[in-house]
Amino acid sequence: MSSNQIKVELTSAKKQKPDFANLPFGKIFTDHMFVMDYTEGKGWHDARIVPYQPLTLDPAAIVFHYGQTVFEGMKAYLTKENEVLLFRPDQNMKRLNRSNTRICIPQIDEEFALTALKQLVAVDRDWVPNVEGTSLYIRPFIIATEPYLGVAASKNYQFIIIMSPVGNYYAEGINPVKIAVEQQYVRAVKGGTGNAKTAGNYAASLAAQEVAEKSGYSQVLWLDGKENKYIEEVGSMNIFFKINGEVVTPELNGSILEGITRDSVIHLVKHWGLPIVEKRISINEIYKAYQDGLLEEAFGTGTAAVISPVGELYWNDEKLVINGGKIGEVSQKLYNTITGIQRGTVPDPFGWNVKVEDEEIILAI
Amino acid sequence: MSSNQIKVELTSAKKQKPDFANLPFGKIFTDHMFVMDYTEGKGWHDARIVPYQPLTLDPAAIVFHYGQTVFEGMKAYLTKENEVLLFRPDQNMKRLNRSNTRICIPQIDEEFALTALKQLVAVDRDWVPNVEGTSLYIRPFIIATEPYLGVAASKNYQFIIIMSPVGNYYAEGINPVKIAVEQQYVRAVKGGTGNAKTAGNYAASLAAQEVAEKSGYSQVLWLDGKENKYIEEVGSMNIFFKINGEVVTPELNGSILEGITRDSVIHLVKHWGLPIVEKRISINEIYKAYQDGLLEEAFGTGTAAVISPVGELYWNDEKLVINGGKIGEVSQKLYNTITGIQRGTVPDPFGWNVKVEDEEIILAI
Repeated sequence: MSSNQIKVELTSAKKQKPDFANLPFGKIFTDHMFVMDYTEGKGWHDARIVPYQPLTLDPAAIVFHYGQTVFEGMKAYLTKENEVLLFRPDQNMKRLNRSNTRICIPQIDEEFALTALKQLVAVDRDWVPNVEGTSLYIRPFIIATEPYLGVAASKNYQFIIIMSPVGNYYAEGINPVKIAVEQQYVRAVKGGTGNAKTAGNYAASLAAQEVAEKSGYSQVLWLDGKENKYIEEVGSMNIFFKINGEVVTPELNGSILEGITRDSVIHLVKHWGLPIVEKRISINEIYKAYQDGLLEEAFGTGTAAVISPVGELYWNDEKLVINGGKIGEVSQKLYNTITGIQRGTVPDPFGWNVKVEDEEIILAI
Repeated sequence: MSSNQIKVELTSAKKQKPDFANLPFGKIFTDHMFVMDYTEGKGWHDARIVPYQPLTLDPAAIVFHYGQTVFEGMKAYLTKENEVLLFRPDQNMKRLNRSNTRICIPQIDEEFALTALKQLVAVDRDWVPNVEGTSLYIRPFIIATEPYLGVAASKNYQFIIIMSPVGNYYAEGINPVKIAVEQQYVRAVKGGTGNAKTAGNYAASLAAQEVAEKSGYSQVLWLDGKENKYIEEVGSMNIFFKINGEVVTPELNGSILEGITRDSVIHLVKHWGLPIVEKRISINEIYKAYQDGLLEEAFGTGTAAVISPVGELYWNDEKLVINGGKIGEVSQKLYNTITGIQRGTVPDPFGWNVKVEDEEIILAI
């Protein structure tokens, strides 16, 4: 399918824009959405941009019962030159297909999906917010729509893209967050779905998150499901530490999400010539580094918050305060550089940005 | 809420009944459904029985993205005396609330939910099929409906009950099935969601199921996620073995679903005075019992298939044929007894059946 096969039905009732200086995260949606259907034997078909509207699904649709669904998260940014940039969107489409494989959802045409995405952003271009720290959050997702109560992969799907202008993920901005090491619940285990971006991983995380919040912590640090000692992720982000001058992050082991911000951080740190290693890291190693005064920085990485410095780790009834609870030098430099690249204010040495041009639009008849 | 708070809107266009002698599993739905809404601060409200109809949900509804949803499965049976019986429905409502706790969904009033369920069955009473081996499958489920892309428990939910007249779960009936021991994928791990009836567990199982089916196996036997050696479940059922005269089943360990048929089997086997034990069982123990000629029977238990005898286990490139591939004596007796109790043809020593009376119906204005 090429872009001129995407039909566009423009809304006749544009919504009022919110105050871009006071945006919540993920609660306000743009005027349009992208939808494409999959039917067994026919493949993906009927790609269309339509007014943002409710989905109408049979109550027996497989997504409600067996969670056969995958998603992505990415952002579009407005530059000072009034250009709209996407950050490594090809990587999101690749990961969406890897998630599809794990959850038995048919592959999408990554190039076509990217074309559709760019066209949707072009249609809702005036929803890309123009205030410092804001962006247009983009949520592609696929849901299984066949009405069937047997446990089997669906014969029908919908691929949908919705978009939401957002402010900072944390109300407090880039200030360091407090994280509790999770010792009861487990997010994922090797052989499970931890490295797929699929709904069940997030449902599994809610209980731990609620407990942490009640104790004053923003997120939890997940340990592995087998031995409950190796570090996996923080909340819904990847995690990095700086120990005695070296940046370390858990290696991809099958249960950790392959974060695109994680990959970007690794590229940049190497580019800067700093030592960095991906390896298995136990919570005990972190604790020892802390005791030895060598735990210099900790930060989470993800699309929503980009870089989220960790000011305190709570483990075994002890509070490990990192870098005096302040953002570290490398964390700050990574945040400035990545958000700078995303907004076109610092050089893009790896060619990560993809510009959204005004795409050809075929209006629906 | 009491039953007279359930408003009923009857359909004006009843569907044609299918041929009850040739029912598929979970593809045909009755004329009506039950719906109740939850709103933060207000609780559950607006309980109603309405014509079976599509759900209309915001594309940002949390269920699509973060899988915050739980469900139950149960059945109604028609007796020869033309009574409608439910099998231990109170246990399903209790388990639904246990699942709710794990997935951070508000508790339901179990008694009210059972009243609503009975009223729905009464409204669609002529959908309870009257053919040997058939029943009315009932699917209560709860979905998170708040449109919000932050990872947090929803503020709004819908509790829905749909119903489907069904034949045997396996097209081949009670014939023994072939099962492959799963060595790559993992269903659940302690600290995860394995003991909750929630969508993500089933999404995680699809890939293993597809691989098994391609090799001619009906289901997979899941091993534990920590050591990959202890037996957990089979497909979406609990598993039992008979070894040297003793019935054994994996103990509830936090990652195994607390099956209601599993519990019923344990009660009956004890009632019959046969030895039965719940304990941790490794696949190696099963293999050794097989080699020693002591592995006499194996069967899965679940609402859909009731008792599903296992005729062959595939493990480490070896086919373990159990009881000559034929259904065992205890498996057959359990099947006859449980389905007999369910249909009112054999005594119900534990008072498991709940009769559906004609309930008071308040028509919606």
